[in-house]
Amino acid sequence: MTDYFGNDRFASLLGLELLEISPGRVRIRMPITGNHMNGFGIVHGGAIFSLADTAFAQAVNGGEQRGVALEVSISFIRPGKTGALTAEAVEVTRNRRIGIYEVRVSDEEGALLALFKGTAYFKGG
Amino acid sequence: MTDYFGNDRFASLLGLELLEISPGRVRIRMPITGNHMNGFGIVHGGAIFSLADTAFAQAVNGGEQRGVALEVSISFIRPGKTGALTAEAVEVTRNRRIGIYEVRVSDEEGALLALFKGTAYFKGG
Amino acid sequence: MTDYFGNDRFASLLGLELLEISPGRVRIRMPITGNHMNGFGIVHGGAIFSLADTAFAQAVNGGEQRGVALEVSISFIRPGKTGALTAEAVEVTRNRRIGIYEVRVSDEEGALLALFKGTAYFKGG
Amino acid sequence: MTDYFGNDRFASLLGLELLEISPGRVRIRMPITGNHMNGFGIVHGGAIFSLADTAFAQAVNGGEQRGVALEVSISFIRPGKTGALTAEAVEVTRNRRIGIYEVRVSDEEGALLALFKGTAYFKGG
Repeated sequence: MTDYFGNDRFASLLGLELLEISPGRVRIRMPITGNHMNGFGIVHGGAIFSLADTAFAQAVNGGEQRGVALEVSISFIRPGKTGALTAEAVEVTRNRRIGIYEVRVSDEEGALLALFKGTAYFKGG
Repeated sequence: MTDYFGNDRFASLLGLELLEISPGRVRIRMPITGNHMNGFGIVHGGAIFSLADTAFAQAVNGGEQRGVALEVSISFIRPGKTGALTAEAVEVTRNRRIGIYEVRVSDEEGALLALFKGTAYFKGG
Repeated sequence: MTDYFGNDRFASLLGLELLEISPGRVRIRMPITGNHMNGFGIVHGGAIFSLADTAFAQAVNGGEQRGVALEVSISFIRPGKTGALTAEAVEVTRNRRIGIYEVRVSDEEGALLALFKGTAYFKGG
Repeated sequence: MTDYFGNDRFASLLGLELLEISPGRVRIRMPITGNHMNGFGIVHGGAIFSLADTAFAQAVNGGEQRGVALEVSISFIRPGKTGALTAEAVEVTRNRRIGIYEVRVSDEEGALLALFKGTAYFKGG
């Protein structure tokens, strides 16, 4: 797990910081910089997704099996502007092959910026 | 439009290149580098999403109204490894307030890596 | 609200029963019959969706504004077979124009069958 | 296939008619009746979803393997009011375990009412 995150160069490019990994719960933080901004001067939807997706991937790959993302649905609720964003991933359900996870991205005041629902497929095992 | 892309610092961080903007069609390219990789050595889902989302945003903001992403669903079909990826966004339908766009992300052989469906809301006008 | 449900002929066709409407929370029940089954003898995905969607519509139209569904993502977790299913809708977030709702469909043992995320657009006033 | 549809009692409840099954393409028709209406007098989102989902299920189960729906995203574009609706399902991509399908629901004038993207998981085989 820690090695996976440590080797995630895209996470590093975005300045992601791993706050917590515990069974069924992952939290990752992204301090906003100018590099995360889109052409309108707010945080790019891709940066918000990437933060959430990284928390999802950590939650999926926290056990012995390796999982891959099949499908994600993300709702953008309000724009990100300054400070740091935090993504918190929880496992909604999981069986041998399929897992569903929910990730909430919030700002420093705790306001919800995005709601992410991801479906993963677990190989082998 | 061009100004929007030119001011998109996150697109710049990811090395995105605008190939084409025409009415109802946008194509953007992302040459894969080590910075796009996740902890498993394949292109991070966030990088693929960000490429598609940038094409979506260009398609949404190609007219006189400014639109924002409400909701996106993305299916990950096969991993990205080397070369350059291309996202092509098309407008499926649009009325005064709501537009739906589809974005396909393909590799250099034309194989489909991801299918993205985005819903945008147009303000004011 | 009650009038809306009372006039919903499709809800009536499916045998839906309104259990609870309170601010930000709606619960609807569907006793499973042979008519809800698909060709494999389990509850049709359309029946599960319809149950959840009806709870979503009630939650969306619980106030003074009329809202319409823009986009829904539903994850199917386990099959429905016998007894009654219950959908519980909660409002995740809402502003003047857009609301996001989550609906959970469970069986009589409380096992989660489906997770539904719906985005609504509120017109007018 | 034909047997699956013939045994689908929910499809029968909704009055669905199988128009075409060919490799990678399924078309199903739903003549609108009062029973499909919601409390606002337009076709219930659940009826539109059910039509699309039935076409998806037929496309998924057209070969030798049995597949189940994992996740669906549906965009509602315009309301259905009279006449008959037609759902056309096409396979976007498929490998041994996972398939992605797109279904378009149109009215008699060919106007697009809903765009459905479904992910299926194939067991065994």
